[in-house]
Amino acid sequence: MKASQFFISTLKEAPADAEIVSHKLMMRAGLIKRLGAGIYNYMPMGLRTIRKVEGIIRDEMNRAGAIELLMPVVQPAELWQETGRWDKMGPELLRVKDRHERDFIIQPTSEEVITDIARQELRSYRQLPKNFYHIQTKFRDERRPRFGIMRGREFTMKDAYSFDRDLASARLSYQQMYDAYVRIFERLGLQFRAVAADTGAIGGDASHEFQVIADTGEDAIVYCPQSDYAANIELAEAVALTAERAAPTQALAKTPTPGKSTCPDVAELLGLALSRTVKSLVLATDEKNEAGEVVRSQVWLLLVRGDHDLNEVKASKVEGLKAGFRFATVAEIEAHFGCKPGYLGPIGLKQPVKVVADRTVANMSDFVCGANEADFHYTGVNWGRDLPEPDLVADIRNVVEGDPSPDGKGPLAIQRGIEVGHVFLLGTKYSAAMNATYLDENGKPQLMVMGCYGIGVTRILGAAIEQNHDERGIVWPDAIAPFTVVLCPIGYDRSAEVKAAADRLHDELLALGVDVMLDDRGERPGAMFADWELIGVPHRVVLSDRGLKDGKVEYQGRRDPQATAVAASEALAFLRQRLGA
Amino acid sequence: MKASQFFISTLKEAPADAEIVSHKLMMRAGLIKRLGAGIYNYMPMGLRTIRKVEGIIRDEMNRAGAIELLMPVVQPAELWQETGRWDKMGPELLRVKDRHERDFIIQPTSEEVITDIARQELRSYRQLPKNFYHIQTKFRDERRPRFGIMRGREFTMKDAYSFDRDLASARLSYQQMYDAYVRIFERLGLQFRAVAADTGAIGGDASHEFQVIADTGEDAIVYCPQSDYAANIELAEAVALTAERAAPTQALAKTPTPGKSTCPDVAELLGLALSRTVKSLVLATDEKNEAGEVVRSQVWLLLVRGDHDLNEVKASKVEGLKAGFRFATVAEIEAHFGCKPGYLGPIGLKQPVKVVADRTVANMSDFVCGANEADFHYTGVNWGRDLPEPDLVADIRNVVEGDPSPDGKGPLAIQRGIEVGHVFLLGTKYSAAMNATYLDENGKPQLMVMGCYGIGVTRILGAAIEQNHDERGIVWPDAIAPFTVVLCPIGYDRSAEVKAAADRLHDELLALGVDVMLDDRGERPGAMFADWELIGVPHRVVLSDRGLKDGKVEYQGRRDPQATAVAASEALAFLRQRLGA
Repeated sequence: MKASQFFISTLKEAPADAEIVSHKLMMRAGLIKRLGAGIYNYMPMGLRTIRKVEGIIRDEMNRAGAIELLMPVVQPAELWQETGRWDKMGPELLRVKDRHERDFIIQPTSEEVITDIARQELRSYRQLPKNFYHIQTKFRDERRPRFGIMRGREFTMKDAYSFDRDLASARLSYQQMYDAYVRIFERLGLQFRAVAADTGAIGGDASHEFQVIADTGEDAIVYCPQSDYAANIELAEAVALTAERAAPTQALAKTPTPGKSTCPDVAELLGLALSRTVKSLVLATDEKNEAGEVVRSQVWLLLVRGDHDLNEVKASKVEGLKAGFRFATVAEIEAHFGCKPGYLGPIGLKQPVKVVADRTVANMSDFVCGANEADFHYTGVNWGRDLPEPDLVADIRNVVEGDPSPDGKGPLAIQRGIEVGHVFLLGTKYSAAMNATYLDENGKPQLMVMGCYGIGVTRILGAAIEQNHDERGIVWPDAIAPFTVVLCPIGYDRSAEVKAAADRLHDELLALGVDVMLDDRGERPGAMFADWELIGVPHRVVLSDRGLKDGKVEYQGRRDPQATAVAASEALAFLRQRLGA
Repeated sequence: MKASQFFISTLKEAPADAEIVSHKLMMRAGLIKRLGAGIYNYMPMGLRTIRKVEGIIRDEMNRAGAIELLMPVVQPAELWQETGRWDKMGPELLRVKDRHERDFIIQPTSEEVITDIARQELRSYRQLPKNFYHIQTKFRDERRPRFGIMRGREFTMKDAYSFDRDLASARLSYQQMYDAYVRIFERLGLQFRAVAADTGAIGGDASHEFQVIADTGEDAIVYCPQSDYAANIELAEAVALTAERAAPTQALAKTPTPGKSTCPDVAELLGLALSRTVKSLVLATDEKNEAGEVVRSQVWLLLVRGDHDLNEVKASKVEGLKAGFRFATVAEIEAHFGCKPGYLGPIGLKQPVKVVADRTVANMSDFVCGANEADFHYTGVNWGRDLPEPDLVADIRNVVEGDPSPDGKGPLAIQRGIEVGHVFLLGTKYSAAMNATYLDENGKPQLMVMGCYGIGVTRILGAAIEQNHDERGIVWPDAIAPFTVVLCPIGYDRSAEVKAAADRLHDELLALGVDVMLDDRGERPGAMFADWELIGVPHRVVLSDRGLKDGKVEYQGRRDPQATAVAASEALAFLRQRLGA
């Protein structure tokens, strides 16, 4: 490919609305172009990378025995009503009426449609297992689309759905997809981690996220460097820090803490470690009658250590909170604690409150907490002595660096990641809702056991760039670079020798199947190099009259600190070796 | 590929709503599956053909210098308001509001978005010409979707858009696309014809439709077997059948024709050829004031020969009818002709009527027409003698078989076709509406001259089947068959020799890059053969114990009347030769 036959459009400055580096670089390198909020044109340069990503995904999906089909973008509402998602999903589900006022949705995923296909087509146990996938345009009407295509509204996703006769077989299908995903992300050339994830409200049996490691990632990934333990922060278990609570050594004391309404402020005032303080979080649950009116509310006090954070996903698994909770109102807090927020604690409650202590808090002695009196805290607080044991003890906090790994293999570490894939053992959630059954050996109908498996195709571009960039631009992995090699001739239009050498190398590389770009635009060398460094082509060869006079060309890998002189006659062999081509 | 790793789903009977053969066969062969009215799942078997069609299109578009990008499915209304299509397009344009009540459309084509890209990105004459294309999901909310994917609502289309500095350059871009389309349809293996088409309401300078020849096609294609003249019926010119009108030989006579209100009935009653009669069609045009109220109406009488059909597209080009016309009301007809429809004619009008005679009618002598009196016609009518010469003479009829070709090279023939592609020289319609300019050599802004070029990717499947099928099923051209070769082993699961021979041939063909399917399902031979004949795989090899004992396999091309015995040892060489592989 020659630049004059392609479309290259780079920008010196990123637009003001680009907040993160991948968005800025994708705009500057001309990979995408904004059409509306969260809606982007994929420009020729960006589409090349998308197609390479899709190619690798398709290849590994096929290798894993999944079968490609294509389900529509516009889907009838009826199927979504059948599973209840028509009602359950909020405004992120884009709804549309056709000319006959019939309801449709623009698909965000395709569980309903594939289950509809399966219940019609897969009738016998002999046809199972089956795994269908498609790579299709999706739409999710994000309230606040941002970060370019990382959280866009229209995006491309590969979604696969497996159908098995029982859970044991479904687990095998799940494992095949897990293994395929590992191969896919390895081939994409990305550093990633598969982490156990919460199965959450969807239910289901197993769930892993595939996270591309990047300091700028939105997700916290917890892992044990000494073992293969890895989970997302929502799921990672915080085991109790000590096996048994130490005996009290201090007397209970009410201490003035004027204006100090946060644990860090109190710890600083008292000259204590933050880990000696306990934070009080007040939740409420509502009991409703058949008409949906609240007939009774229960107030809950959740206690986590001052240097720890509440994990709401874990809280939602506590007995009594599973059906849903909310943060308590100020009125409820004042009624139960006789005090405004900032000085709350478990001692001296005005009305009954359910007290849930995090495992760590339940093991603390001589701790500090609010005194339920403005500008006062208690110090030297001890369970059993100064207040009753908590009603419940549970893991309700996020793990932190250094917490022991649940597998006992060492301390946990935390890194940031960007979720680009998700495998989920759904069980019978959709097959039960849609009555997707097959006939077993005895002719009895049985629910199919499903799994679903997604990869955010366009999101991978953003994640790859967040992981691979420097101050000059993008640094693509070879496998997904828009071009693998760029030839930069200096004086292509005025030196017959440069032109001949560049054209020959271009043609030789093409003949080897190498995705090569020859920049024949006639740009100045500085501007030309800057463009390709911004675009992030991993291998560059510069051809000039001066170099060719000495029989040399200059090679520079995108991560190399400087160029290497290579004999012009050896350039092809050199590149072959570099590329493994 | 082995059948056990794929998804095959054939039906004995087509669903009742399938009206045409391609729809029936696509449903029966399991290529598509209905999701809603005009919305289909592309099942694994159908998707394979779609991908092959897309691959050929992409290949030839790239070869022609077009650059692929990808524009969104969901597009903001603003751009469509800018060109006026938001208002002009009816309910076939699917409109949707996002969560913030902003208007969007689901794209039926992308002129607006590509012009928006071009006006931002193509700023200098140095960047022109450029041709961008994408292959993307489209939606057109047809009032009555039918014929499967031939007139579906959601479909896949390749649409390309060229941008040039002037009309001369745009004509070159147009020709490049025309040539690329010829190569595409040749490579697809379809019999087709490129026909000149009307540029119609869109305006523009040139337009060709690419029509796949099929007796079941909805469009009439006019061509001259002795030359390269080809046009669609809307455009094909009907030249006058005789150079000069013959002299009158009959006297004008009012003849009773009780109850005979159509030309064929009158001709039969009078014992005359239908070509002696003249048909009267009454139109009206309205003059409106600024408030849009009708202030004056003009009634028109259009005369075509009794055996000819009015061509409304041609009528709309007659001076005075260009701004739009309607058929006259019965009240208008009775006021102007003093007679109910069925006996109308140009003689003895009650009120002034503009008379437009088709070229053929203007050359007629001694003809028959209505007498403007119920149950009476005139015979022996002659222009000039019995009534004034017509106000206007124009080509306002469809051509018929045997009409002289406009290029004078012989008589015209007519065949049926299915439109699968369209190239259109748009001119500045969109660039003017959206102010898409570039700077010329003098730094002056100039409007870009555009062309647009569409191919209905999914429609091609239907058209290919309409053209290529028999009573047993589809007969795919090699290039777009879901599989090129099917191996049908008899007793794969019980004969080690059959299994070994089939597996070996399968692997050898795969290694040659042949798209081969090995049917290892263990179906009975009859059912197995019927499936693959229905699906339409062009080359079949049957392997059986009996054959292998004699060192033979059986080859049968999908169009071959019977099988050919081939030495098993020569099977690969035989297939290579057949496939040109």
